[in-house]
Amino acid sequence: MRIGILGGGQLAQMMALAGHPLGIRFALMDPSDQACALSLGTALTGDYGDGALLDALAADCDVVTYEFENVPIDGLERLARQRPMYPSASTLRVCQDRLLQKQLFDSAGVPAPAFEAVATLEELAAAVDRLRAPLVLKARRGGYDGRGQAVIRSANETDGAWLAIGERPAIVEKFVPFDREVSMIGARSREGAMAFYPVSENVHREGILRFTSSRPDDPAVDRARELLGRLMNRLGHVGVATLEMFEVDGALYANELASRVHNSGHWTIEGAMTSQFENHLRAIAGWPLGDTSAVGLAAMINCIGTMPLREAVLRQPGAHLHAYGKTPRPGRKIGHVTVRAKSEQQLRERLEGLCAAFPDLPGLIPETPVRADR
Amino acid sequence: MRIGILGGGQLAQMMALAGHPLGIRFALMDPSDQACALSLGTALTGDYGDGALLDALAADCDVVTYEFENVPIDGLERLARQRPMYPSASTLRVCQDRLLQKQLFDSAGVPAPAFEAVATLEELAAAVDRLRAPLVLKARRGGYDGRGQAVIRSANETDGAWLAIGERPAIVEKFVPFDREVSMIGARSREGAMAFYPVSENVHREGILRFTSSRPDDPAVDRARELLGRLMNRLGHVGVATLEMFEVDGALYANELASRVHNSGHWTIEGAMTSQFENHLRAIAGWPLGDTSAVGLAAMINCIGTMPLREAVLRQPGAHLHAYGKTPRPGRKIGHVTVRAKSEQQLRERLEGLCAAFPDLPGLIPETPVRADR
Repeated sequence: MRIGILGGGQLAQMMALAGHPLGIRFALMDPSDQACALSLGTALTGDYGDGALLDALAADCDVVTYEFENVPIDGLERLARQRPMYPSASTLRVCQDRLLQKQLFDSAGVPAPAFEAVATLEELAAAVDRLRAPLVLKARRGGYDGRGQAVIRSANETDGAWLAIGERPAIVEKFVPFDREVSMIGARSREGAMAFYPVSENVHREGILRFTSSRPDDPAVDRARELLGRLMNRLGHVGVATLEMFEVDGALYANELASRVHNSGHWTIEGAMTSQFENHLRAIAGWPLGDTSAVGLAAMINCIGTMPLREAVLRQPGAHLHAYGKTPRPGRKIGHVTVRAKSEQQLRERLEGLCAAFPDLPGLIPETPVRADR
Repeated sequence: MRIGILGGGQLAQMMALAGHPLGIRFALMDPSDQACALSLGTALTGDYGDGALLDALAADCDVVTYEFENVPIDGLERLARQRPMYPSASTLRVCQDRLLQKQLFDSAGVPAPAFEAVATLEELAAAVDRLRAPLVLKARRGGYDGRGQAVIRSANETDGAWLAIGERPAIVEKFVPFDREVSMIGARSREGAMAFYPVSENVHREGILRFTSSRPDDPAVDRARELLGRLMNRLGHVGVATLEMFEVDGALYANELASRVHNSGHWTIEGAMTSQFENHLRAIAGWPLGDTSAVGLAAMINCIGTMPLREAVLRQPGAHLHAYGKTPRPGRKIGHVTVRAKSEQQLRERLEGLCAAFPDLPGLIPETPVRADR
């Protein structure tokens, strides 16, 4: 089985590392010959709009997938005419457009913050008037890690927010004063079978995911699975998908759907019986999905802009270093560390042991884990 | 960090997969351009005696290691003059010669079956006379997976055994009617720190390892660690080493020392906090050793000659498929399956679930696990 991946970043890298033991080999296409995953397969470097290169990718694999949303639909459709491609172009079309996502949430009965679509500053001003601040303005397309978003704390921030997102078609939605952020990661097979991971509890800073803990006994698990399952079924999704949600007073509100493996699921490499990467590959290859149950407890710390001191991580029992081999740049995700433990107590101790490696870690660890018996 | 590996088989493959997340990249040298690990690094194909190629390997890495014993010492010494090499050529010299191994056991006070060195049929006949059958004749060099060995059940099998091993310098030792076979895998750092895994309990058929279970509570653990630790210290070994032992009436007898990662430690990929492959890399890179404690229970089944039906393995919760991507051939190790479980009961059920995939599995599973409280 040969799988082609559009994108050669860390998600492709972790897919390739997960697929290799299953006997899967990879063809990886990326505009940059410095992309970190390229050494794990046949590398094809060039623009995603390069038809000949896309055809070469198709010719070199049995199934095609991609590691992020911002792939041109044209290229995907060209690939899809030649090879099975998962997720489908129609799923991607929804996931790369926040307005279509919102409409999907509505049609599937998945609660989400109230919103309006806006295409001009005038429409935005009118929407701010109706919805009332605080609001969040989000460009319909092209945003990630907090980019293409601006908070409108009061009506007089409207113009600035419009400029900040680049005066692009957008949605403006009610700011949700959430108790916590969680995500649910699931996989759906070609036959429609689904498997769901435990809840991930996430901590963002400046729009970037910084810290995730696995929550095997989370009280929100059933509801979170139900919501993601509804969306995957509605899309006829094949592969892994991730639903980011806000929790307010015990109720879940959909924030964002990603039709792919997700940063908040990196802990599954060590913390679940089958990683999200392996399950994505199993799903798109047409193979049975793997056991998603948790193996102990796990927490993940993102390395943003700089890597921690290697020794400090390697010396901590239970810690697993993942260095992507990317050039450090401010705000860039260049690695992560997963910590495993047998108990909440041991996990806290092990995280404390990593505070020398991650000076801002104390401010990222949620105070009290939410438990099934709360 | 770039590491050069002599040999591009499955051990190199699993090292590369373990090292990639740590940010290590690899240069792999193998006589065959079909070697299964070559796609995971810079491939150098050519004979181990090719000086120019060895120099190219040295030039392309910071540290050199190897994945098996049967590497020509000349080549290793050439490499060692250019780059740090672990394990050292002197360690390899001992491990690739059964007589030197036996002498090491003796000098370190590690019990092993009584033996004599023989270089001619006459010497062998005299030794058989003194030691008394049943005996095992083992060529000093070049044997693996049962090759280069012959059992002498009675004195009249002496000539046949001598022919069977190719009339080579050998040792002849007392056949040990063992209760079970175990191995201990440990890692020793450049500074002499050591870390040891739980006991592995092994089942061989026709000289080839077929089945291994992790034994986190094994009563033999302290003694097994002591024996391997003594040998590693004596050699000044750096990296992972494996001591295969026979157990007779609760006492351990050294059978074979391998100065490398070992088939009986493949279960550590999923069944230990840090795999043997990662710990070998940490040790030779000069980094801290990782936590060797068990994560639940694990058992490993080797795929010899044929791979099991993929679906049957993937459908079994807790099972992990490792397909090396090697061409199937009778007697060839082409993959393995590891099964994880939370309890002995669950492990047995999961192994039963794999019997369709491995028809001879029922005959390989040891009847009663040895427990600390026996």
